[in-house]
Amino acid sequence: MSVPRSVAAHRAAVVELLTGVAAANGTEHLPLLDALGKALAVDIHAPVSLPPFANSQMDGFAVSSAEIPDGGAELRVAAPVPAGAAPEPLKPGHAAPIMTGAMIPDGADAVVPIERAVPNSFPQPGAVDAVVELPATEPGTYVRNAGSDIAAGALALPAGTCLGPAQLGLLAALGLTTVEVRKPLRVLLVTTGDEVVEPGRELATGKIYDSNSTLLEASMRQAGLEVLRSGISDDDPAGLLAVLRNHTGSGQGNDTADLIVTTGGVSKGAYEVVRQALAPHHVEFVPVAMQPGGPQGIGNFEGTPFLGFPGNPVSCLVSFEMFLRPALSLVHGAPALRTVQKARLVGTLTSPDGKHQVRRGTVGIDGSVRLEGGAGSHLVHALARSNALVQIPSHVTELPEGAEVEVWML
Amino acid sequence: MSVPRSVAAHRAAVVELLTGVAAANGTEHLPLLDALGKALAVDIHAPVSLPPFANSQMDGFAVSSAEIPDGGAELRVAAPVPAGAAPEPLKPGHAAPIMTGAMIPDGADAVVPIERAVPNSFPQPGAVDAVVELPATEPGTYVRNAGSDIAAGALALPAGTCLGPAQLGLLAALGLTTVEVRKPLRVLLVTTGDEVVEPGRELATGKIYDSNSTLLEASMRQAGLEVLRSGISDDDPAGLLAVLRNHTGSGQGNDTADLIVTTGGVSKGAYEVVRQALAPHHVEFVPVAMQPGGPQGIGNFEGTPFLGFPGNPVSCLVSFEMFLRPALSLVHGAPALRTVQKARLVGTLTSPDGKHQVRRGTVGIDGSVRLEGGAGSHLVHALARSNALVQIPSHVTELPEGAEVEVWML
Repeated sequence: MSVPRSVAAHRAAVVELLTGVAAANGTEHLPLLDALGKALAVDIHAPVSLPPFANSQMDGFAVSSAEIPDGGAELRVAAPVPAGAAPEPLKPGHAAPIMTGAMIPDGADAVVPIERAVPNSFPQPGAVDAVVELPATEPGTYVRNAGSDIAAGALALPAGTCLGPAQLGLLAALGLTTVEVRKPLRVLLVTTGDEVVEPGRELATGKIYDSNSTLLEASMRQAGLEVLRSGISDDDPAGLLAVLRNHTGSGQGNDTADLIVTTGGVSKGAYEVVRQALAPHHVEFVPVAMQPGGPQGIGNFEGTPFLGFPGNPVSCLVSFEMFLRPALSLVHGAPALRTVQKARLVGTLTSPDGKHQVRRGTVGIDGSVRLEGGAGSHLVHALARSNALVQIPSHVTELPEGAEVEVWML
Repeated sequence: MSVPRSVAAHRAAVVELLTGVAAANGTEHLPLLDALGKALAVDIHAPVSLPPFANSQMDGFAVSSAEIPDGGAELRVAAPVPAGAAPEPLKPGHAAPIMTGAMIPDGADAVVPIERAVPNSFPQPGAVDAVVELPATEPGTYVRNAGSDIAAGALALPAGTCLGPAQLGLLAALGLTTVEVRKPLRVLLVTTGDEVVEPGRELATGKIYDSNSTLLEASMRQAGLEVLRSGISDDDPAGLLAVLRNHTGSGQGNDTADLIVTTGGVSKGAYEVVRQALAPHHVEFVPVAMQPGGPQGIGNFEGTPFLGFPGNPVSCLVSFEMFLRPALSLVHGAPALRTVQKARLVGTLTSPDGKHQVRRGTVGIDGSVRLEGGAGSHLVHALARSNALVQIPSHVTELPEGAEVEVWML
């Protein structure tokens, strides 16, 4: 039995495994909204400044600040400047009604809000010889300068940015309609085990329904992966190898996987199909000092990167969240890393010495976290009530009520 | 000018607006993975227990604990019990090799892990008359009892649950293949303003690119809404009404919206197209004591619920995150509410008295939050660097370095 690997060391190994795949996988240009949740492939520099021109932050009067002494001044009301118009230059002795977002006319350098004008409303359209009394104002007041958000040529978004609504909104504001993103990896997901039955079928004695496929496919889709499903593979190593060869190597077109993920068959029992099938290939089976999710397979099957997760559903989810998901974030830039926060433990907790324990819990709005279910890796109902993974470092063996723990929000 | 409404009061008004729509919108049955991110429409009770039968938590030997005295005992090795098999009852004086997840045979009530057996490995297949020395064990040790995660008939998930990977995994574990979810609302999203131009077109003097449509459509898609886009409406009220009528009322089939959201034209300027077009209908224009996003429209246009957001991109996002998104969470159950946490402010902050300020910031792994950009609602590049909304209550006017603030993780 080899010495268990730390969580960090195994995560680093998964990062290394994915680094090569990511580089080989290439990029694609997508319309902005199709890129939601994906990783930007290249640095984007601003093709225009934002704002593109100096504009008003308020509804009010555009003025030349130097024309208004400390005591205020009466100015003639010029033609109004609506948003979207190219205004005439401001003539001396005039103030131009200007709307929020409208271009500051040449000759103006400040805006006085309508509330501070006398009268405090705009003249009716067509009114002639209207005048307005305005207070003194500093140059630049209520003016959004051109380029004050970003100047043309500056870095707008670095490669590897995860493109959410705000980032796509910025690209639209810059006038872009498409964006170059990293292509999603295609994962072949194989659930193994003689005991596992597809949901919807009859459940014979000793059998359980396959929840891993649904749990992991949903997690992978949320993380931006494409998922190929092969159905359930039984405990025959030759059958499993045939399934894997169906989706790897060349000549399979769209059915070819960039990464294989299996569940089950990686432990020390007498019928460990993944271990039996893959050990003769370039796949290692390593104990990781983590509970649940300790036994892990990692390597390369005939040229395709391979990860073997344990068979219990909670172990699968923990393996995904602790290894594959953060590695995707680090290597591709998407999905975003999980939000990490501190929470106060409700109740007490024990944890095995030398193992990083990952418990499931519900973080409340008050910053407390209540554990859901025990440590057992089969407790999928307890998992479904949880909104966070609770991280207990390997040297911690017990925690009192109210202890501060790190939680990863799901 | 009416007294500004609080953020909570306006959110309550949006909840009320959506409550009727949600009830009228109905439900649909979807395959599990198509239901990812949607709201469960009905309570789900477990059709089977989980686990369905008592099974082993370890690779080891299934024993009758009463047969092993304190000093241990030598037992004959019975036929092994792989996962998925229906085992023979355990005969007196025997111990059955059992794999993780395999069914506990009748007559056995505990499992001794293989590591504690002498010898500490399973006999070769076909070995005859093998014996094993096992220590005493308490009844129930390493046995996962039937129904210990959830008993048949118990509530598995309540109506309104947001269906993520864990919840869908639970439904699969229960043998279900489809689930009844609330139908997504269809939103008509209309950007208004003479100054707004579609990305990709030429940008004339005084014009800006439309980022609101992309920003909000992406946000709405992430929140599970279907989005209809009408293109940009200019500052002509009659044109805007025609666009709205195209997508409301009866007879339009799939183009009919359940909710209208506009951006821009709700302020106090001289060219407020949404206000001019909608004020004669059942739409109120209310000041909300919030910065940005203060001016809001809410009501009903010819029978279709209506929300009018302000025109700046940051105001749009803040309006969505403070009102529409949480109202959807509260009324439908999906999307999940944003993760709320406390963070320590980097730098200082000022905020207008009597307004709830929403700033944008980056929350670090150390629990600090750095503000991105100033308070200006046009700062979309600063928004794109942020991962959180920083909430400054209306009575707070300044905060020192290190002050604890509430942040909503985006």
